[in-house]
Amino acid sequence: MDLLYIAPLAGLLALAFAAYLMSSVLSESPGNQKMQEISQAIFEGAMAFLNRQYKTLIPFTVVIFLILFYVDGYKLAVSFLVGAICSAIAGYAGMTSTTKSNARTTEAARHSLNKALNVSFRAGAVMGMSVAGLGLLGVSGLYIIFRDPVVINSFAFGASAIAFFARVGGGIYTKAADVGADLVGKVEAGIPEDDPRNPAVIADNVGDNVGDTAGMGADLFESYAATTIAAMLIGNTLYGINGVLFPLLIGAAGIVAAILSTFLVRTSEDGDPQAALNRGIWGTNILVAVASYGLGTMIFGDKGFGITVAIVCGLAVNVLVGAITEYYTSNNKAPTQHIADASQTGPATNVIAGVANGLRSTAIPMVVFAIAIWISFNQAGIYGIAMAAMGMLCTAGMVVAVDSFGPVADNAGGIAEMAELGPEIRKTTDKLDSVGNTTAAIAKGFAIGSAALTALALFTAFGEEIAKNPKLSGLLVNGHLVVNLTEPGVIIGIFLGATLPFLVCAFTMEAVGKAAFEMIGEVRRQFREIPGIMEGTGRPDYASCVDISTKAAIREMMLPGLFAVGTPIIVGFVLGAKALAGFLAGATAAGVLLALFMSNAGGSWDNAKKYIETGKYGGKGTPTHAAAVIGDTVGDPFKDTSGPAMNPLIKVAGTISLIIAPLLFF
Amino acid sequence: MDLLYIAPLAGLLALAFAAYLMSSVLSESPGNQKMQEISQAIFEGAMAFLNRQYKTLIPFTVVIFLILFYVDGYKLAVSFLVGAICSAIAGYAGMTSTTKSNARTTEAARHSLNKALNVSFRAGAVMGMSVAGLGLLGVSGLYIIFRDPVVINSFAFGASAIAFFARVGGGIYTKAADVGADLVGKVEAGIPEDDPRNPAVIADNVGDNVGDTAGMGADLFESYAATTIAAMLIGNTLYGINGVLFPLLIGAAGIVAAILSTFLVRTSEDGDPQAALNRGIWGTNILVAVASYGLGTMIFGDKGFGITVAIVCGLAVNVLVGAITEYYTSNNKAPTQHIADASQTGPATNVIAGVANGLRSTAIPMVVFAIAIWISFNQAGIYGIAMAAMGMLCTAGMVVAVDSFGPVADNAGGIAEMAELGPEIRKTTDKLDSVGNTTAAIAKGFAIGSAALTALALFTAFGEEIAKNPKLSGLLVNGHLVVNLTEPGVIIGIFLGATLPFLVCAFTMEAVGKAAFEMIGEVRRQFREIPGIMEGTGRPDYASCVDISTKAAIREMMLPGLFAVGTPIIVGFVLGAKALAGFLAGATAAGVLLALFMSNAGGSWDNAKKYIETGKYGGKGTPTHAAAVIGDTVGDPFKDTSGPAMNPLIKVAGTISLIIAPLLFF
Repeated sequence: MDLLYIAPLAGLLALAFAAYLMSSVLSESPGNQKMQEISQAIFEGAMAFLNRQYKTLIPFTVVIFLILFYVDGYKLAVSFLVGAICSAIAGYAGMTSTTKSNARTTEAARHSLNKALNVSFRAGAVMGMSVAGLGLLGVSGLYIIFRDPVVINSFAFGASAIAFFARVGGGIYTKAADVGADLVGKVEAGIPEDDPRNPAVIADNVGDNVGDTAGMGADLFESYAATTIAAMLIGNTLYGINGVLFPLLIGAAGIVAAILSTFLVRTSEDGDPQAALNRGIWGTNILVAVASYGLGTMIFGDKGFGITVAIVCGLAVNVLVGAITEYYTSNNKAPTQHIADASQTGPATNVIAGVANGLRSTAIPMVVFAIAIWISFNQAGIYGIAMAAMGMLCTAGMVVAVDSFGPVADNAGGIAEMAELGPEIRKTTDKLDSVGNTTAAIAKGFAIGSAALTALALFTAFGEEIAKNPKLSGLLVNGHLVVNLTEPGVIIGIFLGATLPFLVCAFTMEAVGKAAFEMIGEVRRQFREIPGIMEGTGRPDYASCVDISTKAAIREMMLPGLFAVGTPIIVGFVLGAKALAGFLAGATAAGVLLALFMSNAGGSWDNAKKYIETGKYGGKGTPTHAAAVIGDTVGDPFKDTSGPAMNPLIKVAGTISLIIAPLLFF
Repeated sequence: MDLLYIAPLAGLLALAFAAYLMSSVLSESPGNQKMQEISQAIFEGAMAFLNRQYKTLIPFTVVIFLILFYVDGYKLAVSFLVGAICSAIAGYAGMTSTTKSNARTTEAARHSLNKALNVSFRAGAVMGMSVAGLGLLGVSGLYIIFRDPVVINSFAFGASAIAFFARVGGGIYTKAADVGADLVGKVEAGIPEDDPRNPAVIADNVGDNVGDTAGMGADLFESYAATTIAAMLIGNTLYGINGVLFPLLIGAAGIVAAILSTFLVRTSEDGDPQAALNRGIWGTNILVAVASYGLGTMIFGDKGFGITVAIVCGLAVNVLVGAITEYYTSNNKAPTQHIADASQTGPATNVIAGVANGLRSTAIPMVVFAIAIWISFNQAGIYGIAMAAMGMLCTAGMVVAVDSFGPVADNAGGIAEMAELGPEIRKTTDKLDSVGNTTAAIAKGFAIGSAALTALALFTAFGEEIAKNPKLSGLLVNGHLVVNLTEPGVIIGIFLGATLPFLVCAFTMEAVGKAAFEMIGEVRRQFREIPGIMEGTGRPDYASCVDISTKAAIREMMLPGLFAVGTPIIVGFVLGAKALAGFLAGATAAGVLLALFMSNAGGSWDNAKKYIETGKYGGKGTPTHAAAVIGDTVGDPFKDTSGPAMNPLIKVAGTISLIIAPLLFF
């Protein structure tokens, strides 16, 4: 089966392209010495966090490795390890690229908008290509070696475990630094954002990378790996080797489409960088749709059309959920403007309006998911559901590139401010930064949508694996698995599963509170104790703030991690396979709803504040603005910590359940 | 079957006891002329709201009546109408009793604490006995006439429809008045709570009755009716007439137990009214447990023990969920004190801490539900699940009495303030009022817990009815209904069902925002335009504020009502019976979680503010207190509008599904 080798080759192609982009970015001028110093500090902070995080996860990884080795032999254990390591490598590659290119983007902004866009987008594309390339290479490579999709599911578990900690740890890090920097620096000391006198400023800039690049990258790496493997598992059961091969080819097509589409991302001096990035996304989508039809009919003949429809459903979910997210969070649209309006009667009405908007924003995306599932299933059976997820995820190379561009542009603006480069440079970086905010919102929608479809694909694969477990043959009716919803055990599973996301939301929200509290104490201490810090003659101790964020993030990610990994195992072995199926369904539904609620509420609070800052309702300095700032602060952990934690939560529950499916005994 | 007549006799007994209590309360002195005037204004406002609400619901009721008549003949239609009318009668009886006894409680407080407790508790017990009495009389009477539990399910649907509107309308009313009175009166004009110069003060006092008495009463009337009927339906399928008779006898036992236990509610002058009320609840629980064992073994022989265990599970859920609610919301406990602590760094951290606390508070109750379901099912099969619900609900007479006492005590304090009766009277009413806050929290826990168990009983009954539908025989495997969770249609149902509570939360929260906005405008207008209002020489126009709250509540309850009633029907007929089963499961899980989250977050914000007002962190007038006030205002619609709306939402979805179960065709 020579076609099988196309997938690892495409993976290698993506990695080669990532290496080329990286070297081309590094060959750009890094700016003056001050800029280089700041950039270096951010780079070191980011690496310190990654090193500490991965080091903390080593014992955890080793324990799981040994358990898997003991339970099932070396194949599962090795796959797990490779998954975890690939996720870590993608994290390092992406973070190096984004933190090495922020000052270079600032420098490029001195020349032209297009050049600045070009540098920052290429930096983001390193992450995108690393995610897709390592994902496809890892999955296809392990399949070529072991020839068993069940074994390599453990690769997804490895990716999952890392992703959960990266998302949660990154989310706590970024918000602790952000809240600490803002509350003491901006509010108490009255110095502007990104001011070098603020001791937490480097931690804040590191946080942008840790949250949006490493966290998002690990999240989508996990979705990519889990979806591909779930599709292979289901495909293997239904279509044999063809069913396994096809998702790998779609992955390869996605990589080629993303590489070709990067050349569409360019703009003129007075052009719109958003339009350039949109061209990249649309180019990828269209190329994938065309390739799906070709590959589908080649491999499945007449059935190819239905499978293509399922893939296009996934692409449509991508576009639609992005557009809905933008509608509910953009400050050009009614929902966010209504929150700004409600800020006139104070913070309470602002908060109520934001919560209501977030809750309301969940409905249309859920209906979109339902329609996509319905069409995909009707067109191509349960394989269709996996294919919808695959259609969405195979564009991850481009989506991660567009998303990772955001923190680069954000950092570039910060460096322009800290290095005092003057307003015209800042204007260019601000233009990029504001585009970055929109792409971040769209990427959030993508991450949630892909997590939902991935979780469903995992759920479906879980059902298939349960059906093969000889100890569970009692659950089969005419050879098909039946999990009867009207049995109390299943309902209990749904109840407990739906509770898990609420609990993890609570843990992560409290974690931000604790971490921010420590950060506030440290920044206040430095302002009090370091002489000349406000006059710019004393140097703040940036490293200690970076250290506090890092330690707090690592410490606080443990409890939610324990619940995420532990509860499915407990439910599966104590309440049985049926209850675990209910648990997964409940966790997925509630997790997706809370992710949408939290992300969109947070995004709309943020943009309501920005809307007022454009001068509406009196602009900055008014009680209305103060109310909106409070809403924005409430929204910080909503949108950047608890909301994003839902994605890996529902996927990690799914991958663990898949792993333990053969071991369940009732 | 002579035993059957015990149930309507017990219902009549409850109503006779209610009439006795009412006349005994009315024979108490109504106080001086000023007190009578205020009380009369509250009474008129409450009746105006009830009249307008029920009048608005007439067209809706007629349409449903005609549809049921057309589809299924007079039996279903008549049952529906009787259910709706019984709910309305209970509402009128309870509201008359509580609003006629507030000034009498104030007057009694001049004599002794015990007398004040006695008057206010008897007033609440009128509502409690009306709810239980009309519920049992209606259900058993219709059964004696029609001899078919399927037909009388429509009684529950009638109660459900009214309950949803009463809860949502009442919730919007009470918070619009409260927020309006507080924001303009307390914050802007600087006058104390319950000050007669505040134009919204009567609306605010009416709101206490409309929300806590009429809303809660209708909610529990619905739970009572729906649970009894679901138990009869399941019992009929499994045990024939004995299975139908038993829940009716348990209901009768609950009424007798509650009547006997009212005599335990008395206190001394320096006694603790809370302990007196607790004695009433515990007395009822113990008597019901003993009676269950007797009746269970009499009717089911050996199986009686298992059924008794299931009933005791329901009683235990009652006690445990109440205790957990108190833990997460009382200002003596760590969670609420932590919110007070977080208020020191401003409103944002206060809000985050409250949200986190609310989210976290969902976990233990959900585990309690899961354990209760598990034990009840293992002890007595699916009948056991209905019996757990029945055990919880048969104590409703006492629980509603204890809950309805709250608004009477609250109003009594308001009247003491408005009639300028001096601090020693206020001290007595404050003591009762503070007990009322605790019992309200416990009653909220009871309402949520009973809604959860009722929804599960309805879900189980729905499964039984689906299994009997000949058009759906394809869903049967060996004669048993199978709703396979691993089918995409079922998953879609769960997704859409879980979304409904999020959407209804959003609607109701926005409704409070709009209604409060109108109220704020009106109160401001009166302060501006009525001469001498602040000096006490000009009389505020109370009626216009009552009118605004009423109109807004009626108008804003329509959209959520439409979604609550319409979505199960659409899902059932468009996506089929299996998807509807998924829908109910998803709606129940998400609805219960959101109810717990919203109620407990709101309760803890409220009490965190009160904790600070006892002098902690500097007490009133500090920025810490101001932050806590903002959290409390955010919590108002959480705990009194959106959270409570979840209970009837999940039940109305269940009763409608039961009604349409015989009509579904795939």
